[in-house]
Amino acid sequence: MNYWNTRLREMTEYIPGEQPQDIDEYIKLNTNENSFPPSKQVLEAIKEAANDKVKLYPDPKSTRLRELFAEQNSLNADNIFVGNGSDEIFTLLFRGFIEHNGTAAFTYPSYSLYYTMSEAYGINFDKINAEKDFSIDLQKFSGKNYNLVIISNPNNPTGTGFDINDIRKFLKTYKGLLVVDEAYVDFYGETAIALVKEFDNIIITRSFSKSYSLAGLRIGLAVSNPEIINGFFKLKDSYNVNRISEAGAIAALKDIKNFKYNIQMLINNKEYLEEQLYELGFEIVPSKANFLFVKHSAIQAENIYNKLKNRKILVRYFQGPVQSEYLRITVGTMMEIKKLIQELASITEA
Amino acid sequence: MNYWNTRLREMTEYIPGEQPQDIDEYIKLNTNENSFPPSKQVLEAIKEAANDKVKLYPDPKSTRLRELFAEQNSLNADNIFVGNGSDEIFTLLFRGFIEHNGTAAFTYPSYSLYYTMSEAYGINFDKINAEKDFSIDLQKFSGKNYNLVIISNPNNPTGTGFDINDIRKFLKTYKGLLVVDEAYVDFYGETAIALVKEFDNIIITRSFSKSYSLAGLRIGLAVSNPEIINGFFKLKDSYNVNRISEAGAIAALKDIKNFKYNIQMLINNKEYLEEQLYELGFEIVPSKANFLFVKHSAIQAENIYNKLKNRKILVRYFQGPVQSEYLRITVGTMMEIKKLIQELASITEA
Repeated sequence: MNYWNTRLREMTEYIPGEQPQDIDEYIKLNTNENSFPPSKQVLEAIKEAANDKVKLYPDPKSTRLRELFAEQNSLNADNIFVGNGSDEIFTLLFRGFIEHNGTAAFTYPSYSLYYTMSEAYGINFDKINAEKDFSIDLQKFSGKNYNLVIISNPNNPTGTGFDINDIRKFLKTYKGLLVVDEAYVDFYGETAIALVKEFDNIIITRSFSKSYSLAGLRIGLAVSNPEIINGFFKLKDSYNVNRISEAGAIAALKDIKNFKYNIQMLINNKEYLEEQLYELGFEIVPSKANFLFVKHSAIQAENIYNKLKNRKILVRYFQGPVQSEYLRITVGTMMEIKKLIQELASITEA
Repeated sequence: MNYWNTRLREMTEYIPGEQPQDIDEYIKLNTNENSFPPSKQVLEAIKEAANDKVKLYPDPKSTRLRELFAEQNSLNADNIFVGNGSDEIFTLLFRGFIEHNGTAAFTYPSYSLYYTMSEAYGINFDKINAEKDFSIDLQKFSGKNYNLVIISNPNNPTGTGFDINDIRKFLKTYKGLLVVDEAYVDFYGETAIALVKEFDNIIITRSFSKSYSLAGLRIGLAVSNPEIINGFFKLKDSYNVNRISEAGAIAALKDIKNFKYNIQMLINNKEYLEEQLYELGFEIVPSKANFLFVKHSAIQAENIYNKLKNRKILVRYFQGPVQSEYLRITVGTMMEIKKLIQELASITEA
């Protein structure tokens, strides 16, 4: 590794959920993609954008998408940044907003990207352990003067949520930067977007990968005050969002009817999945997201994960204290759920 | 700028060429996009990829695209990295391969992104001035033990090129990392890809924005030895290339006939543009790219730039020694060229 610098050599790589090449042979319940297809209007918009203008660079600021999201959320376009997935937003956040050797705190368990990014950027961080029921008291973050706190609401992988009033209360004394990762907020959660007008140290991140069924397009948003948003613009690559994905995301925001229908279908399926898993002897953490964090009364999580994988069903298994006792299962279509339950029945009864 | 870190506050922003919102009213000859449309097969591939699978994350490694490019260039897929435009590749290069306080050297004039990125990452760099005819003797980079040298071949904004044997000769003694930015190589240039098998310290970057008419999709490639390529993979965001753009890029590589036709059209137009500009009293730097670097015998470049802009024609004007005497004009379609020449005639004869 002659040409790698110290940072690259020393960093821990973030390992995303498996995306097998023979993906069509699997039921994929491991990366929280939406099981329902995207709006037909999105697919039409992509086809329409497949014209000679792809020879031109995209709008470097994704203006139309920002204006539309702003309009729908009583914000201004200068409150909004569009990234190549919310991954890009997190990378820019660590690159531009926290000093090297700054301090951060995250809940545990949570999205492990926060931990690996902190390591990569030389940020010292504390993991604030969740309670036994996976709830988190935000006041636990008030102990030290952290430069950065990231919470995921609802939280990945547990599905538990924070109350907006608790976040507001926390912000009244906290002076660092608070990021609320709302990748899963559309399923059941309550957004903290209103707090952007009350506090200048909050950034909300959003994703089109989950509730809009558009993981393949790579669109994420950051919502904050204009000064922070300008920082994102200053730091990003010139043309970070491609033309086609911007067009698709705009169509997704416009098709409110399909969005609501899709969410409702998912909630129905989630309730069915919960019932079925309960019948098979699983403990289920109450979830506000499109996944369930579950643990079987008798069989180890890793064991179930492996057996399901052999049967061409992927769910997510995490290493680490507490969470290694659980599996995270994305809520699928009814057919996927029935197949999963059938295999789980055979595994748990064997 | 309370929440910006030192790096973000101090960095100089890279300013891309203008992309006006009322773009349809302009003739855009300022950002070296290809004036000819992309292959119809690319547009078909995008439409085909506009299916329910956009709900799924893309292949994190763009395997199919890498395999195809490898096959066409007698390489292995592990020699190739795909980025969200070559911009992302340059960002990753600075983040992962050069130590903070390392040293670099670039030609001058060249793509100003190299300079702004070096500043942003605390890299000390020398600008090696081109000769009067804008040629560069690579041996001028041998003086100090630079950690990084980037050359653009053909060079942006001058259009001049390097000989592959001169690059080979340079690599026989140079021990740092050499990046050859081949964004414009397909127009006339000779690629340095063969050198990847001879030396372990060369990275070639490629773009689909220019010769493939796909600036709107954001696809760039890095070609190097597997160890360096692994570094890019380790550092990048999990899903950096979206599904649709990967599908479009694959179709572009497959349609060799359209690619060759497009390049030939562009060369024809370039020759016509050269003749016409010469008639109007412009000096023209011999160009291997899809743009011309030109200077009028009597009228200042900035003056011409402003007058053309008022007439809804955008060309590129750069600040800085020597280059501020020149304009960079992208080779357009025949209609665009005729309109440009008509306006230039009226400006130069006024």
